[in-house]
Amino acid sequence: MNVKDFQPKKQTVNDLVRQMKFTAFNARKIGEATDILEQMIKDKGCVKILGLSGALVPAGMSSCIIDMIKNKWIDIIVSTGANMTHDLAKSFGEKFEQIEPEKIDDLDLRKKGFDRIYDVVSSTKTMEMMEKNVQKIFKEIKEGEYSTHELMNEIGKKIENKNSIVRIAADNNVKIIVPALMDSILGIQFWMHSQDRSIRVNEAKDLDYLIKLNFDLKEENRNTGTLILGGGVPKNFILQSVLVADKPHRYAVQITTERPEFGGLSGATLEEAKSWGKVDEKSKICCVYCDATVAFPIIVSALKERF
Amino acid sequence: MNVKDFQPKKQTVNDLVRQMKFTAFNARKIGEATDILEQMIKDKGCVKILGLSGALVPAGMSSCIIDMIKNKWIDIIVSTGANMTHDLAKSFGEKFEQIEPEKIDDLDLRKKGFDRIYDVVSSTKTMEMMEKNVQKIFKEIKEGEYSTHELMNEIGKKIENKNSIVRIAADNNVKIIVPALMDSILGIQFWMHSQDRSIRVNEAKDLDYLIKLNFDLKEENRNTGTLILGGGVPKNFILQSVLVADKPHRYAVQITTERPEFGGLSGATLEEAKSWGKVDEKSKICCVYCDATVAFPIIVSALKERF
Amino acid sequence: MNVKDFQPKKQTVNDLVRQMKFTAFNARKIGEATDILEQMIKDKGCVKILGLSGALVPAGMSSCIIDMIKNKWIDIIVSTGANMTHDLAKSFGEKFEQIEPEKIDDLDLRKKGFDRIYDVVSSTKTMEMMEKNVQKIFKEIKEGEYSTHELMNEIGKKIENKNSIVRIAADNNVKIIVPALMDSILGIQFWMHSQDRSIRVNEAKDLDYLIKLNFDLKEENRNTGTLILGGGVPKNFILQSVLVADKPHRYAVQITTERPEFGGLSGATLEEAKSWGKVDEKSKICCVYCDATVAFPIIVSALKERF
Amino acid sequence: MNVKDFQPKKQTVNDLVRQMKFTAFNARKIGEATDILEQMIKDKGCVKILGLSGALVPAGMSSCIIDMIKNKWIDIIVSTGANMTHDLAKSFGEKFEQIEPEKIDDLDLRKKGFDRIYDVVSSTKTMEMMEKNVQKIFKEIKEGEYSTHELMNEIGKKIENKNSIVRIAADNNVKIIVPALMDSILGIQFWMHSQDRSIRVNEAKDLDYLIKLNFDLKEENRNTGTLILGGGVPKNFILQSVLVADKPHRYAVQITTERPEFGGLSGATLEEAKSWGKVDEKSKICCVYCDATVAFPIIVSALKERF
Repeated sequence: MNVKDFQPKKQTVNDLVRQMKFTAFNARKIGEATDILEQMIKDKGCVKILGLSGALVPAGMSSCIIDMIKNKWIDIIVSTGANMTHDLAKSFGEKFEQIEPEKIDDLDLRKKGFDRIYDVVSSTKTMEMMEKNVQKIFKEIKEGEYSTHELMNEIGKKIENKNSIVRIAADNNVKIIVPALMDSILGIQFWMHSQDRSIRVNEAKDLDYLIKLNFDLKEENRNTGTLILGGGVPKNFILQSVLVADKPHRYAVQITTERPEFGGLSGATLEEAKSWGKVDEKSKICCVYCDATVAFPIIVSALKERF
Repeated sequence: MNVKDFQPKKQTVNDLVRQMKFTAFNARKIGEATDILEQMIKDKGCVKILGLSGALVPAGMSSCIIDMIKNKWIDIIVSTGANMTHDLAKSFGEKFEQIEPEKIDDLDLRKKGFDRIYDVVSSTKTMEMMEKNVQKIFKEIKEGEYSTHELMNEIGKKIENKNSIVRIAADNNVKIIVPALMDSILGIQFWMHSQDRSIRVNEAKDLDYLIKLNFDLKEENRNTGTLILGGGVPKNFILQSVLVADKPHRYAVQITTERPEFGGLSGATLEEAKSWGKVDEKSKICCVYCDATVAFPIIVSALKERF
Repeated sequence: MNVKDFQPKKQTVNDLVRQMKFTAFNARKIGEATDILEQMIKDKGCVKILGLSGALVPAGMSSCIIDMIKNKWIDIIVSTGANMTHDLAKSFGEKFEQIEPEKIDDLDLRKKGFDRIYDVVSSTKTMEMMEKNVQKIFKEIKEGEYSTHELMNEIGKKIENKNSIVRIAADNNVKIIVPALMDSILGIQFWMHSQDRSIRVNEAKDLDYLIKLNFDLKEENRNTGTLILGGGVPKNFILQSVLVADKPHRYAVQITTERPEFGGLSGATLEEAKSWGKVDEKSKICCVYCDATVAFPIIVSALKERF
Repeated sequence: MNVKDFQPKKQTVNDLVRQMKFTAFNARKIGEATDILEQMIKDKGCVKILGLSGALVPAGMSSCIIDMIKNKWIDIIVSTGANMTHDLAKSFGEKFEQIEPEKIDDLDLRKKGFDRIYDVVSSTKTMEMMEKNVQKIFKEIKEGEYSTHELMNEIGKKIENKNSIVRIAADNNVKIIVPALMDSILGIQFWMHSQDRSIRVNEAKDLDYLIKLNFDLKEENRNTGTLILGGGVPKNFILQSVLVADKPHRYAVQITTERPEFGGLSGATLEEAKSWGKVDEKSKICCVYCDATVAFPIIVSALKERF
């Protein structure tokens, strides 16, 4: 296919994306990724997994995630604990304020009670408020052993704010797996709570769920697909989940700023994943090297026009 | 300003950009950069400079550049030789074909007569054709000493294809400065041609033009502003051009994938430029860390809606 | 301090590092990081935490880690599951073979039974062998609930190979915390094993250990310090561990290739960590932007000369 | 070849590099790059070209470059104007002072008379002194037309300071080509000087020199090789210089922090260069993804032990 010059004009985001597909480098990748995700969504029976890492909630990406859930474009979320912590905090009133990173002093922020995430800050007070609210929710959950997705579901059912990913996921029966739950303020709050009660998280149960699901899907001849924002544990967890049943993902899109040459899994190409059997020759794969705050809202907006 | 959740929906690119401004990280930067460029364009009398590096023409970015010229959003272009070489080749029929970089063998491409630029290739034959055409054009240019912008203007006047940046720049009296002209196939062609005739390039004349322009603008109390795609020589040339007249750029937007921590000018922050007096406290500056093939067509499309 | 020209000559790695400190950019950072780690090691009573992410074991970094443990430079390791999986596989005979990533086909590797990690491959057979061995070890461990560091200690005590990080850590009473244990082949093996027996991992117990340790250290007026290779969950876990006791790390060195501008915690500056109270104004902090395979062996070799 | 665990210990830099070769990722690349450069140096008759971009002189890398020249490891330098400007300034007394980029304000630096390059600053006064000295030198140079390497040679002969790259290059008959000379303060100074005298730079003469050299070398069956620090114009110029004579470089090592996926030549792989005929199947090529301030002094120090 020949490169076609991109025509700038008043146009919708989907038109933008369709044009990008005929350019080169990462604009082209955004075009290809959107097409793959469109196919994934149209694939009836395909189980669709969203991987979340990076500070997506503080960066204003919540509605994109919620929208995907409501549209049934997502069946399972695998997330860092931080994104779920921020979602809960936000659902209890936390605000993120834009700042200029070059013009602030971090010790000064500390004194004034602000925590910084690159160019946004939030108040330590809202975090305290969140902690109180989460403790209240934990108290309403029965004692016992939970997978992280069961726990997130229990929490979600008790959130009132309908702009919460955790709540909307619970409403729509989307499982949220947090493979390193204790690596977050939400995890710390859970640890505090579990001091006094017989309640605990068993992350092997998340593995159990996902691996058995893969065996079932294999028998039913159904596909899996994934959109991975960032890398880290969510990427690894989503890709390794298909190894036991030996059932490569049919669709895999990653949006990342990391790179292959330093050898970490976060930056590893999806080509490399073929050697492991995480994807195979039939898989449609695409890696967009771009800040997810840029590529993700573009792709979701374009998909909104297509469906 | 609080972060506002980005709302995915059918929307125009300008709506996308306006929403991005209230998010974080580089989406926010795209929003801010567009606003700064809007102000720059509205600033009557402001001389607006576009810096071009990276393989923008092969990537399908030509029409965005041409459109900016036609809209009078650009007065001067500072470019690598490669982009101008590709523009001329394209105006004589060169095509760029999309390929999958993981699936090709570069020695094989060599045998088949293709040159690769990451995920696009062009034929060595069209390059030969370009060379013949450029030699013909050179023959029509009078002997003498030229600044690079005078030479590019002479070439532009002789290009028939109206989808050529060089032609459209000549039509619109936009100067194209190529500070390292000999560092390109166009430069090599010029060297070949100059073997037999008394014609030469004197790049000090480009400096002369730009520095004197700055003194004039200072007297007339007019501003300069710049949009820099990539880094390299164009970035340095555009920023240093204001030093002699001590007249900092009022507007400066960079779209780059390079980074500050390795100390090169390409990745240097625009904050750092303040210490040199290239911009000052009144300057509106913004650096978008993103593939230019993604951010540039978005910004130009958004500006098209605003004007 | 003025920059001093680096003098190339036959010299030891420590001389190299001492010279680097007086240069700029990341060479300077390697010099500063080594000095901070030297101070951390000399700080009697300081609890020293090593964060491991990225494919360090396949890349030949095991002996550097083992050496640090034996020298008592490390008290706690926080690792991805993958590094511990590779350590165990290696202790049972897995080899990593260098390949040229540009010259291989990943589907071909798959057929031949090799898994690729950028420019090294290992055989799927050795992984199977590892799995058998690990299952055997699991059977020898009593039923019950374990923190990840207790489980890793149980495993370590049963490894015969003295070139195993897990074994040497057990020998030296170094705790290995794996906050996302289930996100690894080791985790999958544990899940398989736990199908038939009443054995489980409770990661809240790792948090419990680390948070209580921080309260104790605070009372005893002792410091903590950390060397973080890569980012991801290990970085976040190490930094968040001091929040509950409000006891910032006194020393923090990160070696990473990620960057701040995309907003993820992996690339966040240690300056930003001050706003959270993870480090404070007394902390000695340094971030080296470099492939850990380059900077880590240099730093450890230099430290070997200093002690 | 199997990966061998790196053994940390008191060792020379060459031992470090030899060990690195058997690891993975960029440590391995440093080992391979050093071996290729060793072969290049041993190849009698090979013309060896050093590419310089990034702020190498301010970063303390001068002595490494000077040492290579004195050892006859370099025949031609292709450099940005900035590095040559800094070399001259330094030879007239300019100092670079280490600063903490997070703790300074660039407007404040401006007021105090300092120019910043990431984490080093120099005084604007020394730059003025440099300018006076350079003007004095220019006056001693005969009127006429110069290639950049002829001009640099004229300048070099008039520098007294023996720690100057420009001086030592002149002493050792090493040509310094600066393809974008006007893109630097040295270029601006030359422009000022040329206002009053009939002296000018013709960069086509550098092309002429290099292209004819390649035809001669082809006839004499001699090789070319290159070590490229950074990317930019020097990289492109060095690689394109072999196209006319169709004589691929036999050795090519690049040390860069840029990356392929954004399509710019600076980050392009040396594999891609094969499609252009800049290197071929016999070429020994290696790209080290690392800050040059780290990899370059290591490699030069290791080479010092080998010769």
